[in-house]
Formats: sequence, structure tokens, C-alpha cells
Amino acid sequence: MKEYRHTVQYYETDKMGITHHSNYIRWMEEARIDFLSQIGWDYPKLESLGIISLVTAVTCSYRISTTFSDEISIHVSVAEWKGVRLKLDYDMKNADGKTVCTGHSEHCFIDENGKPIRLSKAFPDFHQALASLAQTE
Amino acid sequence: MKEYRHTVQYYETDKMGITHHSNYIRWMEEARIDFLSQIGWDYPKLESLGIISLVTAVTCSYRISTTFSDEISIHVSVAEWKGVRLKLDYDMKNADGKTVCTGHSEHCFIDENGKPIRLSKAFPDFHQALASLAQTE
Amino acid sequence: MKEYRHTVQYYETDKMGITHHSNYIRWMEEARIDFLSQIGWDYPKLESLGIISLVTAVTCSYRISTTFSDEISIHVSVAEWKGVRLKLDYDMKNADGKTVCTGHSEHCFIDENGKPIRLSKAFPDFHQALASLAQTE
Amino acid sequence: MKEYRHTVQYYETDKMGITHHSNYIRWMEEARIDFLSQIGWDYPKLESLGIISLVTAVTCSYRISTTFSDEISIHVSVAEWKGVRLKLDYDMKNADGKTVCTGHSEHCFIDENGKPIRLSKAFPDFHQALASLAQTE
Repeated sequence: MKEYRHTVQYYETDKMGITHHSNYIRWMEEARIDFLSQIGWDYPKLESLGIISLVTAVTCSYRISTTFSDEISIHVSVAEWKGVRLKLDYDMKNADGKTVCTGHSEHCFIDENGKPIRLSKAFPDFHQALASLAQTE
Repeated sequence: MKEYRHTVQYYETDKMGITHHSNYIRWMEEARIDFLSQIGWDYPKLESLGIISLVTAVTCSYRISTTFSDEISIHVSVAEWKGVRLKLDYDMKNADGKTVCTGHSEHCFIDENGKPIRLSKAFPDFHQALASLAQTE
Repeated sequence: MKEYRHTVQYYETDKMGITHHSNYIRWMEEARIDFLSQIGWDYPKLESLGIISLVTAVTCSYRISTTFSDEISIHVSVAEWKGVRLKLDYDMKNADGKTVCTGHSEHCFIDENGKPIRLSKAFPDFHQALASLAQTE
Repeated sequence: MKEYRHTVQYYETDKMGITHHSNYIRWMEEARIDFLSQIGWDYPKLESLGIISLVTAVTCSYRISTTFSDEISIHVSVAEWKGVRLKLDYDMKNADGKTVCTGHSEHCFIDENGKPIRLSKAFPDFHQALASLAQTE
């Protein structure tokens, strides 16, 4: 799996001179979307199939500050997938290879009527892709 | 017409120690929504009537920088309304009453099929409200 | 302690029609700054004393979605303060009084050289204010 | 000059299902920073030389809406440079090569004391680089 890269933008910094902490949550989304695309389940595909992915929780632990023009590498992995709740882990590294931030997100999948989708029945391929990644991590 | 007030948030500053210039465009939207509400045509009402307001242009001229915790007063006025294109002017002042930024936005109104709405026919009350404000400015 | 109020802005929504989840992290900051101000330790005061407050971790648990023009009430409380790491809890409610989101943040205090500040020695008043709030919650 | 590319992020969309208009102002900054880097005057270099670039005005004209996952190509050109005020033009195209947005920004250069810098004297190389681009456009 290729890591996702994000270059810190000027507008993502704050008056302390560093990246504002809220942006890491957005980069997790960027990396997650890229991750799903890499495993063959990009957002446009999910949307066309009527699969809506909701964020139910996020956590973020800040270790080293970053700032404008820093290039951040984000590694996404499946922490848990038993068929209902998807738990993803994020490891963000700076150019020196040091972890600047670790994060975690939780998701559920619903259809357009807001009902939970049982992926193992409705989309066994997607279920299997996530399950195999959960085991190998 | 009451002025709209926005307090600069920490996350709206950048590493230069001042408010990032892109935020003024967002405050113009905040002030515009408040303005429409004050003249009796708030967004939920517009949406329920199927009136979609598009932003077709913005300009922003920055005079004095602002920063975290500054309170900005925004005065909105109708620069032009002849029935199709709504032009609004914005004057943003700091606590000393000095203009920190002036802006301008242009809008058109479309229905849910993307067709331009002729307000004077479809919503004469809304048309009249805008027309009377355009004259008195 | 008065609750902090935030009205959801149009630019805070996303194409799902709801508030983008990253904004709750920003509202936690808004509420935290207001909270510190209410207990007599506003940011300008902290900055003038050379006290820098860093965010070391955040968590956010999303329960009910919110959207444009919703008014959110945010209650901040001190979850833990033993002298080094400040842990704050956030409870966000919609107009119906239902919890839409709960959050948590952790902070440390450093001086301008990046060294941890021992508040109990350097700023006993601030230390005491936090300690008393930690007990009464 | 290579065009700058920005992929629209999910968090950049709004409840209308399209990119929120304020983000184009941010992409102009992204493209401008890339442009300066391409002509050999990247931000870190400017900062190390004590050259601060201020945004004094922006305009944005929206023609075609964009949305999540669209790839936008941004072409930056020097509209005017006579030694004090830098005027840049932006042309943003979608994957079909159609212009989705045109923009304009104005900048001045100041030193760390807030005084205007006369580039032709202080940094003749930078002045010359901008002047030659202004002519060839």
C-alpha cells in the first residue's frame, strides 16, 4: 500500500507558527479516501452503489509539530473489521521519518435511507477486502 | 439594519500572526446570511421555496490586518438589484471603527433544475425587498 | 459556567448535507477559549504571561448529525488536572437538548523556550483555578 | 511554467454538493506558492531573506461548479509588475479543459518592520524575474 502524502499549506498554519491541530483530522480523511481508492473501493464507486460511509469517532495524538511546506506521509491501516464498525489507524511521519501524529477513526456504512448496510451480505467483495487487510496488519 | 459581528477565531489566523485572507470571504457569507434573515428572507425560507442563491463573483480588498479575538463588525448593503444579478457590498470594521476590509459579491438565483428564477414574477415580495434596499443605499 | 454557543455556518457543511466532522474539533477550541476566559484566564492574558497552551490530543465521538443554522451549546468541564496535563471534556447539545457530540482534549503548558511550565509554582492562581474545577465536576 | 494541480477534497464541498466558493481563494494561494517556487523564489527563501509578501486584494469569478475528486489545473501569470504592486492572474480549468474560475490577486512586499521593500534595489534578481514574466505574458 502506497502512503498518502500531504504538503502543509500556508492556510493550514496558525499564529503559533505551526499547523493548526484541526487539519490533521482533514488529512486523515484525505488519506482514508486514497486508501479506499487503492483497495479498489473509491468514494465515487461507493456513492454509485449507494454506500454511505459515516465517521462515528476520531482520535488524534500530537507528538511533533509541523508547519508550512512540510511533507507528511500518512500510512493507513485497518485496525478492526468484524462486519459492522470499521476502525482505521493512521501514522503520520515527517520527512525525517519521525511520527508527528497518530490517529484513529471509526466508521459505519449506511444506505440512502439511513439504514446500516451489512457488507458481508450486500457487498461481500468489499467486506472481504477489508477483512483480509484487518488480518494482515 | 444591524451589523453582523464575527470574533476572529484562533484557527482563522496563520503563521504571519494575522487572520488568513481567505476567511474574510467566509465572513461575507456569514454576514450575507444574517442580512437576508434580517430582511425576512432567511436561507431556510429560500430553500423551502426552492430558491437557490449562487455566488458568481467575489472581491476583497484588505486594508488593515486583524487577528485572534478581534471583533469585526460587518455592514452589508445592496449595491445593485435590477432583477437578475444581486450585487452586495461589505464594509468590515474593527473595534476602533476603522475599515479593515471592503468586499463585494455577486449572486444569481436559480431553481432546483438550475434555471434562473425571475424574482419579480415568481417572488415579487423578495424582489421588492431587494429593490427598495438598492434604492435607499 | 455559561455554555458556549456556536451556530453552524454554511461553509462548515459538506456534500452529505451535514456539518463536516472536522469542524467539531474547531468548536472545541472556541469553547475552550471561552471557558478559559470565563475562569479569568483568557488567551491574551496567557500570552502576555508567556504561557503557551499546546494541544497534545483530541477525541471526538459523533452521535447525531448537525447542519447549517443549527445552534450548538457546548459545555466544557475539567476532567483532570494534577499539575501537568490538563484534560477537558466537551458535551455538545443541539436545540432539542440532545447530545450531538462528545469530545475530549489534552493540553500541556510550555514557556516561550518550549520548556514545560510548572503552574503550581509559576502561576499558583491559575493552578488553583483549574484544580478547584477538577474537583467539583 | 507547469500548471499547479489541486484535487478537490471532500471537506471542501458544501451542502449544495459543490466546492464551497471560499476554497478557490486558498487554491490561488497554493498555486501562487508553487509559481514562486518554480521561478526560483520559494517562500522559505523569501522568508529567510526577510521578504514578507502581503495579499492586498483578491477577486474571483465563478463560471462552472466543481466538486469532490475533481482535478483542477491552475495557471498563474504575472498581470502587472512595475516594481511595487504585483498583480497575478489565475485561470482554473477542470479535466475537460474548461475554465471553472478566473481570479486575480494583488500583493506588496514588506520587510520585518512593516516597511515596503523596493525590490529593484534590494533584490534586483527577484525584480527582474517578475518583470520579465510580466512582459512575456
